[in-house]
Amino acid sequence: MPRLITFLLGFGIGLAGDACHVASGTTVYDWDGVPTLWNSAIWFPFLVGLAVLGAAEVGHRLDLPSRTRSRIDVVIGAAVVLALYAFTATLRDQTTTVAVVLCGAIAVAVWAWWDPSPRSLAVALVAAVLGPLTEMAVVALGASHYTAGSDALGGVAPWLPCLYFAAGAVASGLLAALDVPSTAPNDVAVPRD
Amino acid sequence: MPRLITFLLGFGIGLAGDACHVASGTTVYDWDGVPTLWNSAIWFPFLVGLAVLGAAEVGHRLDLPSRTRSRIDVVIGAAVVLALYAFTATLRDQTTTVAVVLCGAIAVAVWAWWDPSPRSLAVALVAAVLGPLTEMAVVALGASHYTAGSDALGGVAPWLPCLYFAAGAVASGLLAALDVPSTAPNDVAVPRD
Amino acid sequence: MPRLITFLLGFGIGLAGDACHVASGTTVYDWDGVPTLWNSAIWFPFLVGLAVLGAAEVGHRLDLPSRTRSRIDVVIGAAVVLALYAFTATLRDQTTTVAVVLCGAIAVAVWAWWDPSPRSLAVALVAAVLGPLTEMAVVALGASHYTAGSDALGGVAPWLPCLYFAAGAVASGLLAALDVPSTAPNDVAVPRD
Repeated sequence: MPRLITFLLGFGIGLAGDACHVASGTTVYDWDGVPTLWNSAIWFPFLVGLAVLGAAEVGHRLDLPSRTRSRIDVVIGAAVVLALYAFTATLRDQTTTVAVVLCGAIAVAVWAWWDPSPRSLAVALVAAVLGPLTEMAVVALGASHYTAGSDALGGVAPWLPCLYFAAGAVASGLLAALDVPSTAPNDVAVPRD
Repeated sequence: MPRLITFLLGFGIGLAGDACHVASGTTVYDWDGVPTLWNSAIWFPFLVGLAVLGAAEVGHRLDLPSRTRSRIDVVIGAAVVLALYAFTATLRDQTTTVAVVLCGAIAVAVWAWWDPSPRSLAVALVAAVLGPLTEMAVVALGASHYTAGSDALGGVAPWLPCLYFAAGAVASGLLAALDVPSTAPNDVAVPRD
Repeated sequence: MPRLITFLLGFGIGLAGDACHVASGTTVYDWDGVPTLWNSAIWFPFLVGLAVLGAAEVGHRLDLPSRTRSRIDVVIGAAVVLALYAFTATLRDQTTTVAVVLCGAIAVAVWAWWDPSPRSLAVALVAAVLGPLTEMAVVALGASHYTAGSDALGGVAPWLPCLYFAAGAVASGLLAALDVPSTAPNDVAVPRD
């Protein structure tokens, strides 16, 4: 059940975030004849859902999160990552410097809030590399492209690693966090193990 | 005393947030001869103050917040809602998709941080419906209007329900929270009851 | 060691934030022949590093922070201040009202989250006055200037006091916070003294 929810979280965030990128003209799909869901080619949200599930499985094997995160933290983490995703759709007129420093600082704050451990940092960093590389491959295949002004990092947006970093950090702890009920009403955290 | 502070918080946030909407050209007041306070027609901040007090009374009867929230949380919550209010004034050039996904994600994060209970969700959802409906009525009366590009939801802005959702969530717990001193210096929360 | 880290945090945030202000055209350096580091005249990050260290020393003598803040809180606080710094570089097209209300609300939230004590408020307020005054002096000396639309406060940006307020609040508690290891994995705060 946590695995299904993890996949659906990735699916939903990918779908809604990508809708923002397409609506803002940040990205464009180029293959004709592919069914669309909201603004996305149908394969995109499935790819994001699987990627989030993959990062969550890796994090689970690394015994993440290192601090207790509950279902409510999952709601906050998912909402914050989606907010950052949507926010990147507003950055088309910003210079690379501003966009990268701003998204990078937010991404570091998200990681440090969610789970400030070296292991979650490793998952986030791997996501920050593999995610943009995968999108570069998608662009190279001609399936989609980032528009002028948002394509300075090998055809993808320079702030893209920051978005994957934040998403990877939160994803790394999802499976265990989804098993922890909210600690409300009294806010005292439950130690794991 | 908590009731007066709650009213004044709503009054102040309404006044400062509305100043942003008028300054940015998001909204325009249309009735002549109405006294103004900062950028608002005089009745607007009173209306917001009463609405916040009303949501707080409803939340109080529902025994909200469900988790301990203190005066300092009130400061953070009020500041975050005002920040979101002011931020919506920067969204005139954004598409509806980007504006709604971005504001919606932030609003959900605010609710989950402040008080992730079904009851506070109910208050927030009612606010997200009644608030925009009230503003549609104000527009229909000819007292004010949202400008082109920010009027796609029956004459009001599409992101308006998100702003009311966040404000309603925080408002629902204000009365009890204002009775709880800050738990600094040691950060351990005090259970309610 | 906390003093060196504090200086380096100020140095790094000043360097990256200023790079955003220069890249966005918010500020321009005017003296020829001064060595540059990234986008800054070489003296700027040193000045910010020393200012942050000064605020941290004052806060240390005032026994700040009043609540336990750990190294991870320092990471979050530094990232949030840098995010606000970079975000101000996106405000060139916004009215003074919107920019000041938005940055002011965020700055208050940062203070209330980091250390909601009257003493940290005092440090933040002094920073909000001395920082912009110092920058006005720099502008008067002809070393740099804020561009049209971002110079309405005696030659500097109207939102500048808000940025210094947030930075001063966090800086006030850095020295003690850098001595407190993260309280992960179980999130229960360690009371000071």
